[in-house]
Amino acid sequence: MTRKTVLLLVCLFAASPAAAQEESSVLPEGIRAAAAEVRDQAMAGTGAYDIVASLTTEVGSRFAGTPGDRAAVAWALLKLRELGFENVRAEPVTVPRWIRGDIQARIMEPFPQPLVAVALGGSIGTGDDGIEAPVVLAEDMAALKAMDPDQVKDKIVYIGDRMERRRDGSGYGEAVQKRVNGAVEAARLGARAVVIRSVGTSTARIAHTGITRYSEGVPRIPAAAVSNADADMIERQLATGREVVLHLRLTSRRLADTESANVIGEIPGTDAEAGIVLLAAHLDSWDVGTGAVDDGAGVAIAMEAARRVGQMDDAPRRTLRVVLYANEEFGLSGARAYAAAHADELERHVLAMEADFGAGRVWRLDSNVPEDRLPLADAMHALVAPLEVERGGNDSGGGADIGPLRERGVPVMGPRQDGTHYFDWHHTISDTLDKVDREDLDQNVAVYATLAYVASMVDGGFGRLPIEDDSEESDGGEETGNSSQE
Amino acid sequence: MTRKTVLLLVCLFAASPAAAQEESSVLPEGIRAAAAEVRDQAMAGTGAYDIVASLTTEVGSRFAGTPGDRAAVAWALLKLRELGFENVRAEPVTVPRWIRGDIQARIMEPFPQPLVAVALGGSIGTGDDGIEAPVVLAEDMAALKAMDPDQVKDKIVYIGDRMERRRDGSGYGEAVQKRVNGAVEAARLGARAVVIRSVGTSTARIAHTGITRYSEGVPRIPAAAVSNADADMIERQLATGREVVLHLRLTSRRLADTESANVIGEIPGTDAEAGIVLLAAHLDSWDVGTGAVDDGAGVAIAMEAARRVGQMDDAPRRTLRVVLYANEEFGLSGARAYAAAHADELERHVLAMEADFGAGRVWRLDSNVPEDRLPLADAMHALVAPLEVERGGNDSGGGADIGPLRERGVPVMGPRQDGTHYFDWHHTISDTLDKVDREDLDQNVAVYATLAYVASMVDGGFGRLPIEDDSEESDGGEETGNSSQE
Repeated sequence: MTRKTVLLLVCLFAASPAAAQEESSVLPEGIRAAAAEVRDQAMAGTGAYDIVASLTTEVGSRFAGTPGDRAAVAWALLKLRELGFENVRAEPVTVPRWIRGDIQARIMEPFPQPLVAVALGGSIGTGDDGIEAPVVLAEDMAALKAMDPDQVKDKIVYIGDRMERRRDGSGYGEAVQKRVNGAVEAARLGARAVVIRSVGTSTARIAHTGITRYSEGVPRIPAAAVSNADADMIERQLATGREVVLHLRLTSRRLADTESANVIGEIPGTDAEAGIVLLAAHLDSWDVGTGAVDDGAGVAIAMEAARRVGQMDDAPRRTLRVVLYANEEFGLSGARAYAAAHADELERHVLAMEADFGAGRVWRLDSNVPEDRLPLADAMHALVAPLEVERGGNDSGGGADIGPLRERGVPVMGPRQDGTHYFDWHHTISDTLDKVDREDLDQNVAVYATLAYVASMVDGGFGRLPIEDDSEESDGGEETGNSSQE
Repeated sequence: MTRKTVLLLVCLFAASPAAAQEESSVLPEGIRAAAAEVRDQAMAGTGAYDIVASLTTEVGSRFAGTPGDRAAVAWALLKLRELGFENVRAEPVTVPRWIRGDIQARIMEPFPQPLVAVALGGSIGTGDDGIEAPVVLAEDMAALKAMDPDQVKDKIVYIGDRMERRRDGSGYGEAVQKRVNGAVEAARLGARAVVIRSVGTSTARIAHTGITRYSEGVPRIPAAAVSNADADMIERQLATGREVVLHLRLTSRRLADTESANVIGEIPGTDAEAGIVLLAAHLDSWDVGTGAVDDGAGVAIAMEAARRVGQMDDAPRRTLRVVLYANEEFGLSGARAYAAAHADELERHVLAMEADFGAGRVWRLDSNVPEDRLPLADAMHALVAPLEVERGGNDSGGGADIGPLRERGVPVMGPRQDGTHYFDWHHTISDTLDKVDREDLDQNVAVYATLAYVASMVDGGFGRLPIEDDSEESDGGEETGNSSQE
């Protein structure tokens, strides 16, 4: 029996009469039947894979402000029109510009070894001569914070702390602190540079990049990550008790800010007053890979889910708006720009959903809706449950790019994608199309299309969340799937 | 129940009384009991992992003729003495010297993309300006050979042919032909360079190196491999039907031959006239990784298996000789040098065994012994069968380094290691210690020690194989585990 057949049988027998009755009190039978149809048709095969293939093959990497970024904007405008979207447009976003440059990293003593390393996003360079200094070990951020400046001064701080592989990706939220804040904490103690074990689960000898932060009043020091295998090497040499000396040379640097764009396309609703359902992904990627799982997959899921809803016999009542955000990775520029540019129409945003956790199957549906709309969220879950999706909690963050909308009261649904392997490739050269499975992607499209369709049709909408205090604005795109609130 | 407990139970119940009777006619009970003891003690834990850790941490890569190669020879001499070996010595071997240099590879048209590529071992360089030319696709070597010179002239030939993942590694023998002979075949048809899909199963974006050959009278052209993900990218761009243009720049070059050494250590037998049991591995590695699975694991298995036999209450009757060969990878220099230097005592070599297929568990025992010694080989298998080792055929090649001995009549036993993941790391930067599992390595030691002990004790030995015609001498170290004859 194929996987598809199993799912079909599950679909046929999943809903008990009692459950059906309860759902019908929230969702009319007509909406449920049409949603099931869009779901099942997507499970039979979608065009999502071809969209990721097109983006990664024809554009490839698209780091904020680079020629690839501009090519991606052009690609997205063309592709959205090609797929039948309307009101297709690019909204300007100012983005920071950082040049990775080259990196050389070596253990000099006691046993010389080359290291596979990558500059962390935003790192300053070392100067032409590089930095050569003894290494001091911090097992994790807590250990670093507890260290004495005497131990750290003029050293290169190495931070270990291996990321744990988990389906929900929660190992990332824990381990990423050293990448984001390691340079600041090490510099406070007088370190000359910081080198971290990659925040990632790869067993291949590749290093994972991602944003690092500096802080006003704290010296800026170079920051790099080494592969897990090279982190092991450093730790084995440190374990000998002998002094370990590293040489590190980076030519990374910042340039002036430049322009990029959020690219938007719509499936117009039949009722212009009924509001907007927003489907989000980010168009930019890190420079090292081709951005297939981060976030080409999300781009394809959002585009294809909206397109399929637009092709239904019953056109959606609300407008489906696909927003492909600029520069998620290096500072959430697009997310902030969209929230600012659309501040006046935020109350028209009925619901937002984001796809930015790769191409693994959706295994759980979280939400963040007002209490009185939980029956609606549950009824929406019932429609995707046959796709092996559990019901999660009502504390979803939604995602990094729609975070500013959620903070301003827009309810979110949070499909959770399987992240078991996501961090093998995340922010590395290995983020390529072969990591995307066509059927897994179709399941994502089925989930997002089903939810988007219901959201576009249901009477009364989802209400509003309480407005959050946004005085502590994040400047890092440390997306943790939909788990940023957990 | 732990894996160890399961194996112990299997050990207790495996041998039926009837089988035991049959074995006892070939192998005396005393030898069998002692062999079972060395086996079970090894399964309880060995020092093999620490040996690989030491080699990869303190030396790292050790490509023929490099400083790492010399450091490895010094390491091996020291380590063998430290482990109690006698007659420890380095026997001179002349080795070729090749400099990898740098590589840049890019798709220029129709969709510019950087490629992760690696020069094939022995490749010439491209000159400073590199080579820029349209790509012509050959799906495999057979397709290339069938092509017309008009299709190929002045082009860069790309050869696809994805390697299949199999436990016995047999996918390698099929796919490696393009790496070894692709440059010659492409050059015959007028190509300017050859680029191949990596011979390897890695899904990480890393390229697999390995030796390539040139042939007298055929122009030498640069040869490189791209990662599987980049091969996919080339193939997707070719599939658009548009002309694909590659730019390739390599600074690889040959230097004059230089010196290395086979490193030898012995556990002397109690009977100097009883001959030698040879345990082989190769000390060199490719330059890109740290040579943990290829062949640090083999070095550790051979050393530790011999050491443990040497520590038994009953010292072995025959001498166990561990030979750590120089330059297997780039031309089998050590294998040839040993066979030549020891031509006079080859008849004293009772049996040879090699470990050069990584650190996966032994799952089958092949052999290559005269027909009348098959009962002995079967009885030896019965001793390792409880370690989940099947009995294989009697056509084992033995391995690349002991091939010249087998060709000259020395019987071989061929433990087959599980190669399911070996070619994810083989000949890449990812060949690092984390790929070695301590318990899997112990199982290897248990198998090799058991077989070595029996071979060192058994009356009458293993006879001689027919002498093979060696007029077609291989010049490539295309080790395919023990499957080179299959």
